[in-house]
Amino acid sequence: MPTLLLKSQTTAWIEELPRHLPDLKVRHYPDIGDPAGIDYALVWLPPPGLLKSLPNLKVIFSLGAGVDHILADPELPAGIPIVRISDPHQCHLMSEYALLAVLYFHRAMPAILADQLQAKWTRRWPLYTPETAVGVLGLGEIGQDIARKLCAIGFPVHGWSRSPKRVDGITCHHGQAGLRAMLPLCRYIICVLPLTEATQGIIDAAFLQALPPGAFVINMGRGGHVVDKDLLAALDIGHIAGAFLDVFDVEPLPPAHPYWQHPKVVVTPHCAGDVVPRTAASAIVANIRRHLGGDKLHNVYQPDRGY
Amino acid sequence: MPTLLLKSQTTAWIEELPRHLPDLKVRHYPDIGDPAGIDYALVWLPPPGLLKSLPNLKVIFSLGAGVDHILADPELPAGIPIVRISDPHQCHLMSEYALLAVLYFHRAMPAILADQLQAKWTRRWPLYTPETAVGVLGLGEIGQDIARKLCAIGFPVHGWSRSPKRVDGITCHHGQAGLRAMLPLCRYIICVLPLTEATQGIIDAAFLQALPPGAFVINMGRGGHVVDKDLLAALDIGHIAGAFLDVFDVEPLPPAHPYWQHPKVVVTPHCAGDVVPRTAASAIVANIRRHLGGDKLHNVYQPDRGY
Repeated sequence: MPTLLLKSQTTAWIEELPRHLPDLKVRHYPDIGDPAGIDYALVWLPPPGLLKSLPNLKVIFSLGAGVDHILADPELPAGIPIVRISDPHQCHLMSEYALLAVLYFHRAMPAILADQLQAKWTRRWPLYTPETAVGVLGLGEIGQDIARKLCAIGFPVHGWSRSPKRVDGITCHHGQAGLRAMLPLCRYIICVLPLTEATQGIIDAAFLQALPPGAFVINMGRGGHVVDKDLLAALDIGHIAGAFLDVFDVEPLPPAHPYWQHPKVVVTPHCAGDVVPRTAASAIVANIRRHLGGDKLHNVYQPDRGY
Repeated sequence: MPTLLLKSQTTAWIEELPRHLPDLKVRHYPDIGDPAGIDYALVWLPPPGLLKSLPNLKVIFSLGAGVDHILADPELPAGIPIVRISDPHQCHLMSEYALLAVLYFHRAMPAILADQLQAKWTRRWPLYTPETAVGVLGLGEIGQDIARKLCAIGFPVHGWSRSPKRVDGITCHHGQAGLRAMLPLCRYIICVLPLTEATQGIIDAAFLQALPPGAFVINMGRGGHVVDKDLLAALDIGHIAGAFLDVFDVEPLPPAHPYWQHPKVVVTPHCAGDVVPRTAASAIVANIRRHLGGDKLHNVYQPDRGY
């Protein structure tokens, strides 16, 4: 009987997974039982060494679109495929957040909320939307969904990815030259990149300087994408007008971090997207069935590209 | 030479209108010149008696989707057609605002912004969007655009109008019975109705009670649609979880009004939508051309239905 170890506080997985594969036995960490009996692991932040302690582990399922939190395990066993999750509802949640963040700045909510505290009636009009572009960094499932929805509500949208892509209605760029060409065009920039060696610290002083004055930064990727001191400096000199940040180098964001009190920063507690058992369980089980049947797994992490 | 009197602080009209009709002469209030030489008036809030003082006035163009501000003139001359504006960019602005207001509540921004002030990291997840409906009151051009965009980003959408309508992807209701059927289904309710005798005070205690507990009210129609004391009472007992209000009985909203300081209310200064000369001028001029050519005007106010 195939057995999966779950390391998550979301207990709905215990019911949802066997709904799609009644034979599947789910053990909920820390109740591991016999480590040799575990075939699959579904984990967010595995305690270092946990995965190595499972001698017959066959597939690691990440409870997120990224795998950086799993690669962080210094004792990660080699040679076991790591599968990234693909959850349509997670895409949906991420897109809601992206639209909210763009519209929050586009419709001057920081100023309007500040005015309200003083009972001040000052009408504020947005830039003309059909001429106000949004750039999306990362054109995987999530980035494409965000780009398409921003396009549907009337923004011109640019997208950037490592390798060339085509997405209907979106102006696509790629590589270093593409990034340099795109940034000056974007009033809003949204990061949904995977965290890799190549993307670590991508939002640095040079990146921010390449954006037009008054641009806004939205980070929904990983904290490691942003060089915090560079972003704070760009906010303080006024070149960047605001930042909407969901992810941080250290989470929860420490109480003394300057982002918390910065008047131009909105801090959200890594809540842009989440993997939802009711919509993600079927994709996980489909991969388990592929594995049981000897077929190729979908969405496997590729070390050469870093995601 | 056809002559139009403009009463607006937006001077771009003076350039934009003749771009589409070079023969058109525009006089900018208060520089009226000879009142007998004025054929058309383009006005938002006409001073009482102004329109009556123009003996050869042929068409009144409202600088808004509604006409209630023009009907408020006690000396409004009878028998002159009043034309409502149709501006695609105004629809667009209204939809941006509606999406922002829905997502602001849906993604718990009031709580997240309050948490930030205390450097508090508390993750908050929305209700499952595919099961969380939005109701749109009013299915004219603006209401339909809002409904379609909410639908495109994943919300189930109900729409309500005076007479039966069909809109792809939207569950349409009409009349009093339709309203009673729809309200209990809607976690978010958005008002973009015209203000008429039939819609005055429509958002009253009974209406609010019919919404599910924890519902949110978004008013982008007119202040007169909401019975303020009923909304405040429903907020205070907690049946209504929040309100996003752009329009008020008296504007600017007086500094002492309880909405300003209410923790569950977002007050915005009638900035949800605006008529933009660069996108609206062509539709106005098209109507002037129709009139000059003896053809039927579009978007004429119909007193029997009130809009």
